Amino acid sequence: MASNAVQDTYADNDSHCYGCGRLNPHGLQIKTRWEGEQTVCRFTPKPYHTAIPGYVYGGLIASLIDCHGTGSAAAAAYRKAGRDMGSDPKLRYVTASLHVEYQRPTPIGTPLELRGDIEEIGRSDDFGPKKVVVAITLFADGQACATGRVVAVKVPENW
Amino acid sequence: MASNAVQDTYADNDSHCYGCGRLNPHGLQIKTRWEGEQTVCRFTPKPYHTAIPGYVYGGLIASLIDCHGTGSAAAAAYRKAGRDMGSDPKLRYVTASLHVEYQRPTPIGTPLELRGDIEEIGRSDDFGPKKVVVAITLFADGQACATGRVVAVKVPENW
Repeated sequence: MASNAVQDTYADNDSHCYGCGRLNPHGLQIKTRWEGEQTVCRFTPKPYHTAIPGYVYGGLIASLIDCHGTGSAAAAAYRKAGRDMGSDPKLRYVTASLHVEYQRPTPIGTPLELRGDIEEIGRSDDFGPKKVVVAITLFADGQACATGRVVAVKVPENW
Repeated sequence: MASNAVQDTYADNDSHCYGCGRLNPHGLQIKTRWEGEQTVCRFTPKPYHTAIPGYVYGGLIASLIDCHGTGSAAAAAYRKAGRDMGSDPKLRYVTASLHVEYQRPTPIGTPLELRGDIEEIGRSDDFGPKKVVVAITLFADGQACATGRVVAVKVPENW
């Protein structure tokens, strides 16, 4: 079955990320998919991803927002260009800045849902917009626990 | 040999954090120590903590800044109160907001050094300042690769 996750369309050499690389067996394997106009990531933390007992570690929350942000940026760049995700030339983004507001402790032991909105997207050409800003809210049991904002920039062609 | 890391003075129940808990065998075991007026954390990423090959994953950088920020906040609260680190009542902080600017790719395979400055610290009483703001710079091979800012708030007594 074909995956519809943007990370599964990254080139092999771009798929070793600890957060979202499908070729990193130690990593978190974060996935980003479209649901209508929003991007969605679902992730269930491991029992050891704790902050204080019972709650999710803030660094993991930052990691989820980071990779869901860059994944959302790539998905949005393809959509804006009217191209299939993963088609060449590849559109891949990295994080320039990451901002997380922890609104309440995030309970552990329940699936988390992160919903992304494309807040700003630059002018597109064949090589995609240079900058995409993604606003993300993390929910646990239907309650918003953290919000984030990722400024993602296009990976230079010569990387 | 006694450790002089603030995280090693946390109460057992506060020592399960994936980022910095000494009792979390799966975790990163981040440590924060004073060097003069700055707080310092040294950490060598594992080979699998990659972003794109050759560079450190941004979510790991955010995690280091997060726990070094809250550790620095606790250390600064004890210092401001003129108390020994770890003395009772315990002073423990969590992250309210985290901001990371990725200035250049951080090379993997070299030790990282994070240096923290206490940017703002609230009025102290026996239970410590409610809020501490820590500015952090991450260096690899002597070059600044990322900067961060952590707003840390005191853990309520009833947690």
